[in-house]
Amino acid sequence: MVLTPPDGSTRLIPIIGDPIAQVKSPGGITAALHARGLNAYVMPAHVSPADVYRGLAGLSLLRNVDAILATVPHKFAAFRHATTATPRAMLLGAANVLRRNQDGTWHADMLDGVAFVTALRQAGCDPAGKRTLLVGAGGAGAAIALALLETDVSVLQIHDADPTRRDALLDRLRGQGTGRRLTGSDDPSDSDIVINATPAGMRADDPLPVKADWLTPDMAVGDVITVPEITPLLATARRIGCITSTGVAMFTAGRDLIVDFLLGT
Amino acid sequence: MVLTPPDGSTRLIPIIGDPIAQVKSPGGITAALHARGLNAYVMPAHVSPADVYRGLAGLSLLRNVDAILATVPHKFAAFRHATTATPRAMLLGAANVLRRNQDGTWHADMLDGVAFVTALRQAGCDPAGKRTLLVGAGGAGAAIALALLETDVSVLQIHDADPTRRDALLDRLRGQGTGRRLTGSDDPSDSDIVINATPAGMRADDPLPVKADWLTPDMAVGDVITVPEITPLLATARRIGCITSTGVAMFTAGRDLIVDFLLGT
Repeated sequence: MVLTPPDGSTRLIPIIGDPIAQVKSPGGITAALHARGLNAYVMPAHVSPADVYRGLAGLSLLRNVDAILATVPHKFAAFRHATTATPRAMLLGAANVLRRNQDGTWHADMLDGVAFVTALRQAGCDPAGKRTLLVGAGGAGAAIALALLETDVSVLQIHDADPTRRDALLDRLRGQGTGRRLTGSDDPSDSDIVINATPAGMRADDPLPVKADWLTPDMAVGDVITVPEITPLLATARRIGCITSTGVAMFTAGRDLIVDFLLGT
Repeated sequence: MVLTPPDGSTRLIPIIGDPIAQVKSPGGITAALHARGLNAYVMPAHVSPADVYRGLAGLSLLRNVDAILATVPHKFAAFRHATTATPRAMLLGAANVLRRNQDGTWHADMLDGVAFVTALRQAGCDPAGKRTLLVGAGGAGAAIALALLETDVSVLQIHDADPTRRDALLDRLRGQGTGRRLTGSDDPSDSDIVINATPAGMRADDPLPVKADWLTPDMAVGDVITVPEITPLLATARRIGCITSTGVAMFTAGRDLIVDFLLGT
């Protein structure tokens, strides 16, 4: 779509990250906001980890900044910069979006997990009651794990190359949802849904994050990677006949969720 | 022109001001930069006087911010935030544009006066050797006064409702150019060029800044006001047959000068 050019009344929505060149929100979310009739632009704001708190403080002083988006590695800093937050953001200690409270302070939410589940549903797989294997207990994995428990999966297995990180996440999820929480492995055999939330698959020579040969056609397979859109894991899953959900679909679902959050709808 | 949508590689050029809704640079300079092949957007950054130094410090931490524009009342703060400056910015203690030095600090320039003189020339009046009457010794007036002296006017008369402000400007201009510097009045009779650098004319019931009945067809008349484009002073001058130069023409000339400065050309 053709964007309305910016003018003096344009609201500014910075997306902070380091690096920043890879982000798609400036084009995608700006277009979505314009489609809803808002004179607002999402703009990249490249800030290093050493400068992120002072950068957030400076951006917060701008009276036409109504929202701030955060990407890697600033989702934790964004959460800590906020005064109020949704329960899921508080549990995760991370935020990918901030909007103003009436007093000018920030309200945080973390929509990555919901975005993944939304994309999975749109692909034709409802996780309620399903056994799931999640590989990767970092920021994206934690958000997805919480969203899966909130949709009442029956079993959530978590696997990570770092068992300490895996156990810390399992510990943090105690008391969330009714599903059983287990340590997992790279064996997908006992699962209905298999999810990669690690960087494995961004490069062609990355090892597969799970034993893809053991996938069966009744399983659903999801990935968080956006480039390439079809990772080797997803390519294998499609060959077998699995339902698949891509990182691009997750990004698109997340974009709509961010717009809803920004508009308070 | 149709702008290329922003992406993760877009360079961000904030324009700071208070208020900010009236600025035209976000559309105009963004289009001019895109026409030169730059992926950059000028965006309004509304910051109050109490917050301006912390706001500038925060914006300076953003690694994709290569330039900052300043409008009223932040041209003095913008200058003081810079580490290096052009001689005219130093004399005026004000800047309407900052660009990065190689070490990340800011280099300031103040282009408002040159923009006025450029517009006046484009209207068909070369101020060299002319007798000029400038009404208004504020920020815009000071910039124009210096630019007139740099183009070798023969006489520069300055009038201001506040004689202290007028004398302070005359004092500051000592040693600049070869023209005679005099205190002026609202009587344009002895001048070839008459310039309004006050807000008088923004509202329909404002008094005229000079005795417009005493204008003659051989004079040129300029104004810094952009809304309305044709102020009562300019309307009278056109009726008489004077060459006229508008605030909009000054803004357009300034836009091109800003783009040249940002590109280092």
